[in-house]
Amino acid sequence: MQIIKAVITAGSPAQRALPLQAIVDSDGTSKPVLAILLEDVTRAGIEEVAVIVPPGDEPVFRAALGPAPCKVVFIPQEGPAGYAQALLCAREFAGGKSFLHLVGDHLFVRSKGASCAGHLLQAAAEEDCSISLVQPTRENLLPRFGTIGGQPVRNRPYLYSVDKVIEKPTPTEAEQTLLVPGLRAGHYLCFFGMHVLTPTIFAYLAEVTASANGPLSLSAALNRLAREEKYLALEVPGCRRFDLGARYGVFNAQLAMALEGPDRDEVLAGLLDLVANRFALAETAAE
Amino acid sequence: MQIIKAVITAGSPAQRALPLQAIVDSDGTSKPVLAILLEDVTRAGIEEVAVIVPPGDEPVFRAALGPAPCKVVFIPQEGPAGYAQALLCAREFAGGKSFLHLVGDHLFVRSKGASCAGHLLQAAAEEDCSISLVQPTRENLLPRFGTIGGQPVRNRPYLYSVDKVIEKPTPTEAEQTLLVPGLRAGHYLCFFGMHVLTPTIFAYLAEVTASANGPLSLSAALNRLAREEKYLALEVPGCRRFDLGARYGVFNAQLAMALEGPDRDEVLAGLLDLVANRFALAETAAE
Repeated sequence: MQIIKAVITAGSPAQRALPLQAIVDSDGTSKPVLAILLEDVTRAGIEEVAVIVPPGDEPVFRAALGPAPCKVVFIPQEGPAGYAQALLCAREFAGGKSFLHLVGDHLFVRSKGASCAGHLLQAAAEEDCSISLVQPTRENLLPRFGTIGGQPVRNRPYLYSVDKVIEKPTPTEAEQTLLVPGLRAGHYLCFFGMHVLTPTIFAYLAEVTASANGPLSLSAALNRLAREEKYLALEVPGCRRFDLGARYGVFNAQLAMALEGPDRDEVLAGLLDLVANRFALAETAAE
Repeated sequence: MQIIKAVITAGSPAQRALPLQAIVDSDGTSKPVLAILLEDVTRAGIEEVAVIVPPGDEPVFRAALGPAPCKVVFIPQEGPAGYAQALLCAREFAGGKSFLHLVGDHLFVRSKGASCAGHLLQAAAEEDCSISLVQPTRENLLPRFGTIGGQPVRNRPYLYSVDKVIEKPTPTEAEQTLLVPGLRAGHYLCFFGMHVLTPTIFAYLAEVTASANGPLSLSAALNRLAREEKYLALEVPGCRRFDLGARYGVFNAQLAMALEGPDRDEVLAGLLDLVANRFALAETAAE
C-alpha cells in the first residue's frame, strides 16, 4: 500500500479560524497551522492534499496559506454539516485509493523530529489496511474523543486490532466495552486525529450519514469498518496531539512546538520571566 | 476633558489576523483580542469605538466580534497605507473632541484588575492635554517602538513632559536626545500603544503625511505636537503591553492574561506538565 494523497478536514464554520491560526513552528518561523500540517505530511511522502473547507472560504485559505510544499486543492464542504460529511466530500479526490487523513484543528508534535504521519504511513505500508493513530488517554477526557476497543497484536508492541469504535463514550460504556489489556488503569485508547483509511470507508460514511438524524462523526463509520475489515490502531510513544479548539489548546500546542526547536531556551526563559514578574508585580503594585 | 470615544487601529493588511485572534481572557472565556480591548475600554468609561480596518474586511470583523459591549463602527482605511493614515480615517468620527487611541495588535495586561485605559483616562481628565502611556524599555528593543524624550514632572511620580518623539530610534539617536532622568541605565520610555489625543493631532497627521514619501507612524505627528502643545507621558507600574505581532507575542500575551485570572493554577500546572513530559520523552523516545 503506497499512499501519496492526504485529506485534511477543516470544514467546520465554528472552527474555521483554527487551521489558519499562526503558530511559530519548531523550525522557529511563524506560519499557519495548515502550513505546518502540509510540511509534515510532505516530509512523510505525501504528494497531493485535499483540504475540506467551509463553502466560500477557499480564497481566505488560499491567501493565508501562501506557497504550499505540495499540490493542494481546496474542496468546499457541500451538503449537511459534520465530520462524516466533510470526509465524504473527498471521495472523488481519493480516486479509489487508500489515503492519509488528518483533522485540521489539531497539531501533532513528536519529540526528536520524526513525524507522526511518517510512523503511521510506514505501519500502513506494512499491514496493508486501515490504521488509526491512538493515544492512551485518561478516562476524564473520554467526552472529547473517539475511543477504540480491541486487543494488542501479539509480538507487535503498540499495535492493536480494533473491535469497536465509540464516539465520546460515557465512562460506563467505556468500561464495559472498550477496555484494552495492558493499558494503565483508567486509560483508554483515544483517537489522535490522524488515520490511514482504505477507500471502503466512503461506503460506510455514506451508509451512516444516510441513516442518521444529525451530524455524524467518523467513529460510526469506523465502527462499521471494524466489523468488516482488518482495522488496526497504532500508538507512537513520543507523539502527542494538541486539540487547538480546547481551552488553552493553541497556547499548549505553541509551547510543545517551541520545546522541540531552536527557540526552546528563549521561550522557557521568557516564560519564567513572565511568571516571576507577575508575582513581583502582585506584591508591589499600587492600587 | 471627558472622553467617551475611542479609536482602535487595525487597518494593516499584514496584521489583519491579530485583532481577531482568539485569546482566553483573564475572566476565563475565549474571545477575539478586539473583544477584550472593547470590554476594557468600556469598563474605563468609553461609549463609542471606531475600529479602522482594511477595506473589505468589515464583514469579517463584524462576524468575528459578535455582540459588542459598546457602540462600534468599522471604518475602512482608504488612501495610502500606514499608521498615520489609519488614524486620519477617524477624523470625522472624533468630531473635534479628544479621544482614546489603542493599537489593535497589542494586548494590555494589568496586575490586580484595574485597567491601563482607566489610569490613562483619569490622568487626561486631570491634565487636560494629550498623554501617551509609556513603558521603560531596554535599549535593545528600541527598533520596535516609538520612543520619547522629556523630563519628569515635579512631584508627580511616573508623569513626564514630552519634548521629542522618535519612531524606532537608533541607540545613538536615543542616547543623544531621548535620555530621561531617573530611569535605569540603558532604559528609555517607549510607547505602550495607548494614547489620549486632542483633536489637533489630525492637523499634524495630515501635515506629516502630506510631506512624507512613504507610510508614516504616529510618532512624527506627536513630535510636532510636542513642540506646540502641552504633551505628557505616563507610566503605570504593573501595566504591561504585549505586541501580538512579535515572535511568540500571542503566546506570551496568553500566559500573562492567564496569570491574572481564575485559570492561573490550571495553566501553570499544564505548562509544567508539558515541560516535564518533554524532557521525560526526550530521554525515552525510541527513534
